[in-house]
Amino acid sequence: MAPTQKLINDGNHTVDEMLAGVLAAHPNHLALAAPRAVIAKSGPRPGKVALIIGGGSGHEPTFLGFVGKGLADGCAVGNVFASPPPQPVVDAALATHGGAGVLLMYGNYAGDVMNFDMAAELLQMDNVEARTVLTTDDIASSPNPAKRRGVAGNVFIFKAAGAAADLMLPLDEVERIARHANARTYTMGVALSACSLPQTRRLNFDLPAGEMEIGMGIHGEPGIRRGPLKPADAVVDEMMDAILAEMAAPAGASVAVLVNSLGSTPLMELYILYARVAERLKLAGLGIHSSLVGPYCTSMEMAGASITVMHLDDELAKMLDHPCDCAMFRVG
Amino acid sequence: MAPTQKLINDGNHTVDEMLAGVLAAHPNHLALAAPRAVIAKSGPRPGKVALIIGGGSGHEPTFLGFVGKGLADGCAVGNVFASPPPQPVVDAALATHGGAGVLLMYGNYAGDVMNFDMAAELLQMDNVEARTVLTTDDIASSPNPAKRRGVAGNVFIFKAAGAAADLMLPLDEVERIARHANARTYTMGVALSACSLPQTRRLNFDLPAGEMEIGMGIHGEPGIRRGPLKPADAVVDEMMDAILAEMAAPAGASVAVLVNSLGSTPLMELYILYARVAERLKLAGLGIHSSLVGPYCTSMEMAGASITVMHLDDELAKMLDHPCDCAMFRVG
Repeated sequence: MAPTQKLINDGNHTVDEMLAGVLAAHPNHLALAAPRAVIAKSGPRPGKVALIIGGGSGHEPTFLGFVGKGLADGCAVGNVFASPPPQPVVDAALATHGGAGVLLMYGNYAGDVMNFDMAAELLQMDNVEARTVLTTDDIASSPNPAKRRGVAGNVFIFKAAGAAADLMLPLDEVERIARHANARTYTMGVALSACSLPQTRRLNFDLPAGEMEIGMGIHGEPGIRRGPLKPADAVVDEMMDAILAEMAAPAGASVAVLVNSLGSTPLMELYILYARVAERLKLAGLGIHSSLVGPYCTSMEMAGASITVMHLDDELAKMLDHPCDCAMFRVG
Repeated sequence: MAPTQKLINDGNHTVDEMLAGVLAAHPNHLALAAPRAVIAKSGPRPGKVALIIGGGSGHEPTFLGFVGKGLADGCAVGNVFASPPPQPVVDAALATHGGAGVLLMYGNYAGDVMNFDMAAELLQMDNVEARTVLTTDDIASSPNPAKRRGVAGNVFIFKAAGAAADLMLPLDEVERIARHANARTYTMGVALSACSLPQTRRLNFDLPAGEMEIGMGIHGEPGIRRGPLKPADAVVDEMMDAILAEMAAPAGASVAVLVNSLGSTPLMELYILYARVAERLKLAGLGIHSSLVGPYCTSMEMAGASITVMHLDDELAKMLDHPCDCAMFRVG
């Protein structure tokens, strides 16, 4: 897509104008506690742990689409591809916590780590107990699981933590389940094009037509390898080989699957990918408990897709099946 | 986006491979009654009118995403941008009808009219009463409402008819409500890029970077005018001027709104558009009863968006609010 082809007004105000639209479109679900601090209309509830998520904009429906009853209580909204500062994190937490502490969850990026850590300190100074759990599901981003980035697997990981909090579990338990969910969630992506940044209307990286980059991050971070675009099944096989090897789930185990569009890859292609993902899981003797197919964690109009597999146990299956009612995501 | 950048295997088999993925991903919602005839797992129900929708592929989640309890009972799946033949329409109808007749609904395109009319005749020969209602919501496609194409407004129009059928209303009433819904639904779109056809991997029309075409159809049919891409608010104003003039709703009336992505235009931009749509409706003294924002009727990876406004009355509001549970769309 040509870099200039955006339906925006001012490249420097896209996030605030988007927020105005989100709040106007979802008045029963979402409200603003303070600038860039989106909260669920359903809260707060006494005795409930508050789950606050957030990160840069441009990944919609991640993050603000996952605010609602049964999932996140609030969200701090950063600029495009940039961490929010600590203040909206603090504002969202103070507006939604029920006296049982706050769990802050976000993808593992340096800017987010710094700002959410600062927010946690500020909350402690307000005598609100705050813990943080980073998501690190992008297996292509580092051989060391602790150094990996958080990408589309956020949907499952946040969902599990949000369900735990909605079930009124204490902060220790919500944190444990969040870490457990993250440890069992594996994502790999493939990019077919760059996206363009609204501020500059320029592409954020260069990827020639006919090429793909396996393992590329959701802000254009380098992947594992670049090469000619292959048929869909071959692309899935390369990603599933890596995911299945990392996951090392025994035959008979149960998984949840997300086939995610990075932006402009349409449902037709996602379902073609899904068909092969399902075949590979069946060949590995794994059962599919539930599936999501669609744009869940995007990079604006980037072309490409990611595959996420969460290795379930009874606890995680229960958390994924727990009802949630968000502006852009519902279960149950 | 470069024409070759598709995650597919064989350009001639994308629809069948997509269908395999859809059925694998949504086993609780969807089943195949016959080749290219997708039906809801929830049916049939004795005494219920069956609603059968359909059309060409490439517009997902339209059409098959709207099959499910409370909406369509079945769907005939055509090739990319091509009408299905009569047989899957007949197969879907025979597999789902409850002895109270069948309503066939589809967008007003010559190929669909021919094939669905033939399907209606075949059903009559099987002693199944079949009526057809064409959707004609694209106000840019002709000054004559009867000659207009059916586009994203399908979502609201099918939803109203599906609710009527789910409420066990007789065929006369379901048909009346379908026609009433169609008559009060107004859509206009804007294209910022072409999409590429899987069979040829070539763009289906030419639109230079930096240009937009107002009123373009969802298969690239010519619009009203082409010109330099304007800021989002100006684009919305041009479309809303036309919609509000056609709709001629009195101040105080209530509407449903859909801001739809044609494919690669991301949620960020749709919500920026929505903010201006909401402002324009407020200025016109119209109340927003409900809103949808996202990719509901796409042209594969075409860039652009459409705005649909349905002029509600109490009956139509009730039909839109009625619960439905489809693979790719839920209400209530």
